Amino acid sequence: MNFKPIGDRVIVKRCEEEKKIGNIITLNPEPSQFFLVMSISDEIDETQLKVGDTILLPKYGYNTVELEGVVYGIVKIEDILAVKY
Amino acid sequence: MNFKPIGDRVIVKRCEEEKKIGNIITLNPEPSQFFLVMSISDEIDETQLKVGDTILLPKYGYNTVELEGVVYGIVKIEDILAVKY
Amino acid sequence: MNFKPIGDRVIVKRCEEEKKIGNIITLNPEPSQFFLVMSISDEIDETQLKVGDTILLPKYGYNTVELEGVVYGIVKIEDILAVKY
Amino acid sequence: MNFKPIGDRVIVKRCEEEKKIGNIITLNPEPSQFFLVMSISDEIDETQLKVGDTILLPKYGYNTVELEGVVYGIVKIEDILAVKY
Amino acid sequence: MNFKPIGDRVIVKRCEEEKKIGNIITLNPEPSQFFLVMSISDEIDETQLKVGDTILLPKYGYNTVELEGVVYGIVKIEDILAVKY
Amino acid sequence: MNFKPIGDRVIVKRCEEEKKIGNIITLNPEPSQFFLVMSISDEIDETQLKVGDTILLPKYGYNTVELEGVVYGIVKIEDILAVKY
Amino acid sequence: MNFKPIGDRVIVKRCEEEKKIGNIITLNPEPSQFFLVMSISDEIDETQLKVGDTILLPKYGYNTVELEGVVYGIVKIEDILAVKY
Repeated sequence: MNFKPIGDRVIVKRCEEEKKIGNIITLNPEPSQFFLVMSISDEIDETQLKVGDTILLPKYGYNTVELEGVVYGIVKIEDILAVKY
Repeated sequence: MNFKPIGDRVIVKRCEEEKKIGNIITLNPEPSQFFLVMSISDEIDETQLKVGDTILLPKYGYNTVELEGVVYGIVKIEDILAVKY
Repeated sequence: MNFKPIGDRVIVKRCEEEKKIGNIITLNPEPSQFFLVMSISDEIDETQLKVGDTILLPKYGYNTVELEGVVYGIVKIEDILAVKY
Repeated sequence: MNFKPIGDRVIVKRCEEEKKIGNIITLNPEPSQFFLVMSISDEIDETQLKVGDTILLPKYGYNTVELEGVVYGIVKIEDILAVKY
Repeated sequence: MNFKPIGDRVIVKRCEEEKKIGNIITLNPEPSQFFLVMSISDEIDETQLKVGDTILLPKYGYNTVELEGVVYGIVKIEDILAVKY
Repeated sequence: MNFKPIGDRVIVKRCEEEKKIGNIITLNPEPSQFFLVMSISDEIDETQLKVGDTILLPKYGYNTVELEGVVYGIVKIEDILAVKY
Repeated sequence: MNFKPIGDRVIVKRCEEEKKIGNIITLNPEPSQFFLVMSISDEIDETQLKVGDTILLPKYGYNTVELEGVVYGIVKIEDILAVKY
């Protein structure tokens, strides 16, 4: 994906989530709030966030764009709730 | 829960509340405004708030996320109303 | 009530008000705008407002929380209209 | 009225207005925009506004409070349109 | 009209406008956007605007007040669109 | 038109636009977004914009005023999208 | 297109997009979020963005203008999500 976000933005891709009901694991039908960081703006410090990180986003309120059938989110760093460690 | 909030945010988990009608104690069916602090951003001073504190939140207006069937709140410190001592 | 407000907030409790119709005094059925200050944030100067003061609040627009069957308001000092002297 | 406004607020009382139709003078049935200044915050300079002044307020958009059957307005000085001289 | 506007406000009175259809001149039935400046706040520099100037206002969005049957506008100087020279 | 805009405003007049369908040129029935600059505030630098320039405006969101049957726009310079060169 | 954007704006033209269903390539019937930069304001640094760049825009929320049958977007640089490299 050859795009670089502008300003304090990050390009992310939604993670598919599994749902466990009893012993059966299926894909969670609800849209996941987990996203993988695909690309970050040059304005963002890599000690704060880097490509490959898993992040949590709010349910609504950020821009999306479809590239070759895949929906990406393009979000400002201030809208990211938390990062996995 | 291996997530660290970003910015001036805190990850919290709703406390279940008991309701006393006469001598009978039951779970309060209404969503509680009491939350336990699970994780705090590195930007927050621990003298102000720390993991394990019980806090009060407004009824609406903060982000939630479901992790393994549990709903967590991810809130900015300025949205926290009060802390138990 | 072992809670301390955060930021420039104050915890208040609504005062019950009497209504005088002729010589008969009854409880005013409308929600009172008079509140008693129960707890103040450490960030608030006590020369401005202190526990025990009676204050006036707007009719709407502030957070409430129920603690053991009593509804408290948790308000920012800038939302307090006036203080009794 | 033993209340002191907080911040840059003023407590005011609506003036009743007369309406002249021909030679007959009656009370104006519409709510008056004229108010008498009853109490001012210590933060307000008395050269700008003082108790006893008559002021003009917008039709909507300020807080009211009922004290012993009388409706008072509690307004910020920036919301006062004009003062009588 | 013995009122002085507060802040960066101006008291104005709507000008009646004539409408010319062919050779016949009638009063324009639509509310005019032309106003005569009646009184200005002490905070406004008279080189910018003075009593007696004709100004243009937006169609909506400013406070009005009725004084002895005449509707006046009380507007902030930043809301005035243009001044006649 | 003897009016001078106040603040960072400009008075503009809509340009009529032609529409070409095949070889036939007619007036475009939709309101044009092209405007001619008629008058500029003294606060605006003429190297940025001057009387006689053709500009592009958004479809909505600016003040209009009717002067002798002609509708003028009175817009802030920050609302102007582009200028013809 | 002889227009220069004002302020921190950029004039862009929507790119037509292809959609691949199996081996068949057709024009994507949905409006593309890809745009070509046609003209930039003098206030914008060319190291950040230049004429000829392909950019990504949100689905809604920017001004458009029709010039000779072609719809252009005129957007502020802060509204641009990402740039192709």
